[in-house]
Amino acid sequence: MKTGRLEAFSDGVLAIVITIMVLELKAPEEVSLEALSHEWPIFASYLISFVYLGIYWNNHHHLFQITEKVNGKILWANLHLLFWLSLIPFTTSWLGQHYTNSTTVSLYGFNLLMSAIAYFILQHQIIKFHGTDFILKKQIGKDWKGKVSTLIYIVGVCLSFLNTWFAISCYVLVALIWAVPDKRIEKHIL
Amino acid sequence: MKTGRLEAFSDGVLAIVITIMVLELKAPEEVSLEALSHEWPIFASYLISFVYLGIYWNNHHHLFQITEKVNGKILWANLHLLFWLSLIPFTTSWLGQHYTNSTTVSLYGFNLLMSAIAYFILQHQIIKFHGTDFILKKQIGKDWKGKVSTLIYIVGVCLSFLNTWFAISCYVLVALIWAVPDKRIEKHIL
Amino acid sequence: MKTGRLEAFSDGVLAIVITIMVLELKAPEEVSLEALSHEWPIFASYLISFVYLGIYWNNHHHLFQITEKVNGKILWANLHLLFWLSLIPFTTSWLGQHYTNSTTVSLYGFNLLMSAIAYFILQHQIIKFHGTDFILKKQIGKDWKGKVSTLIYIVGVCLSFLNTWFAISCYVLVALIWAVPDKRIEKHIL
Amino acid sequence: MKTGRLEAFSDGVLAIVITIMVLELKAPEEVSLEALSHEWPIFASYLISFVYLGIYWNNHHHLFQITEKVNGKILWANLHLLFWLSLIPFTTSWLGQHYTNSTTVSLYGFNLLMSAIAYFILQHQIIKFHGTDFILKKQIGKDWKGKVSTLIYIVGVCLSFLNTWFAISCYVLVALIWAVPDKRIEKHIL
Repeated sequence: MKTGRLEAFSDGVLAIVITIMVLELKAPEEVSLEALSHEWPIFASYLISFVYLGIYWNNHHHLFQITEKVNGKILWANLHLLFWLSLIPFTTSWLGQHYTNSTTVSLYGFNLLMSAIAYFILQHQIIKFHGTDFILKKQIGKDWKGKVSTLIYIVGVCLSFLNTWFAISCYVLVALIWAVPDKRIEKHIL
Repeated sequence: MKTGRLEAFSDGVLAIVITIMVLELKAPEEVSLEALSHEWPIFASYLISFVYLGIYWNNHHHLFQITEKVNGKILWANLHLLFWLSLIPFTTSWLGQHYTNSTTVSLYGFNLLMSAIAYFILQHQIIKFHGTDFILKKQIGKDWKGKVSTLIYIVGVCLSFLNTWFAISCYVLVALIWAVPDKRIEKHIL
Repeated sequence: MKTGRLEAFSDGVLAIVITIMVLELKAPEEVSLEALSHEWPIFASYLISFVYLGIYWNNHHHLFQITEKVNGKILWANLHLLFWLSLIPFTTSWLGQHYTNSTTVSLYGFNLLMSAIAYFILQHQIIKFHGTDFILKKQIGKDWKGKVSTLIYIVGVCLSFLNTWFAISCYVLVALIWAVPDKRIEKHIL
Repeated sequence: MKTGRLEAFSDGVLAIVITIMVLELKAPEEVSLEALSHEWPIFASYLISFVYLGIYWNNHHHLFQITEKVNGKILWANLHLLFWLSLIPFTTSWLGQHYTNSTTVSLYGFNLLMSAIAYFILQHQIIKFHGTDFILKKQIGKDWKGKVSTLIYIVGVCLSFLNTWFAISCYVLVALIWAVPDKRIEKHIL
């Protein structure tokens, strides 16, 4: 099987997920910049999730540029990733409304964690299907970025029960680590 | 006519249907994991429908990989399938809110049943247009998976008036039968 | 300019328009098939609009299969068509809620009329850009289907102030006329 | 990296942004054309935003037709543009509800201004990556259209605190300037 339609479907889902989050932005009842400024947590959580989904799209794009063929397991691993990413508008909206509550902050981190694990499984299935000489295997190497982010997410989820700001800092930190497109893969393609 | 744009349009609709279901997930008023856990039927029905739509996308993908050309009847059979699939966010949301009510459970099963029939019609039209030597005809053979699922859906809809859990088990069972991509077709392509 | 990306964008918009209509379907408060059956006008208007958008997608698909190149005017004529089609979820929802009211019925007809005019303009711009020998010009001939539908829409809008059922019958009639893909174009391609 | 998937993703996001705005159109409670006519600011703001998003899609289309390759910076510059455009449904809806309020009018202008700046950055990154001989550099020349529009947006945002009609006129003026596809680029392609 070719990768074309899988990429098109994933692009579709990611484009919708990144866009429908805006439907959760509700204007304040009082019409003033001051009233709007009180809604900053809602906009900040929108921004973080937009960046995260942008990172996933970028990495997904890179990943499938070197993937040559897909099998049933890769199709399902991809759907599994899209499932967790599709929940981000929900967890983002709840986070934006109650950003000092450990429930919403830990849930948001859990969503990011499950997405990262799903991405890891997808990557693993692609490598397994392409064989040990596959270029992706060499490039990601020990995949320290993937492992470190997973660790930071877990720390973040735990910290959210102590101090939500520490937890949110963890999530922002991982976003910063990934915001640079994966040079390991890009290097090879260019 | 080529299949390209039909696939692109179907991918678009399926991507939107699978994603907008998340707009029906409403956070509980009380902000706690306990309050969220009471909403499990809403998340469970979201998960089942996500899997079903994933299955339809996978099978649609497989189906059109061996379809070489389309005519007007195939276009309409495809739109007919998309119509029933487009109603899934509605029936899913109602099911999630009232999962012990025979009305919502039977309606959800009816939606799945009509989608299965629409898929059967689409498949039939494609075979008819490509002639008796068409590879798809040989592969699906007697199409026992299609027939068995249709039967289980009908049983599920009937059972929903006796016990909704029996009905829901039927729907989950069909999802499990199909979650494995159709080997009959995949075997040929690989 | 090639037609590829214009088709992709139009497919995207049409796929979203046809799908988000489902967000307007609200479950009745009382959970029973009887309560749901009272909502039939909402489902009937959803069905009619789904068929209409399917027709537009089919015809748009046919139209651009023989279009070889696009210019700025064609891009804008296409956006103009998408504008009117994008309003269909709004007029459909209002129609479904008040199907015996001349305001909603005439507005729905007006939306269909403007979409038909926009399609006519798009078709005209494509013919103009491709020259008099262009195959499309010969195929559509005097375009009686386009002219008759426009007339029936106008009749429907006027009738909606006398009897909404007459008006709705007009809209259904046009849908039936077009539900068969445009043989004039298909004949040439096959 | 090729531009194909970046274009597909951008088309997806733009198609969704342009379409979900219709979800913000709420029918008046009273069912009459008179009641609907009182909602004209909501429809007018929908129309302006539809035209703006159409312009961005057109220009984006033109831009990537002459772009040959993309790097990480271009990917992020493109996501940055999509971020600001994704906020348009929110600012449009608020503008439509309170069109005589300086807050909503200035916010809408600010959104347009940030989108224009994001487009400018994207264009700049593409030129930088392709080198000084790149055809785009010659075509846009001093980019007076970009500079003039930016200036008018800033004037509009300032004027919105004096008179909202002056501000809205500024936004309409820029739309008119751009509604004609960029001849500088088109000339080269045809």
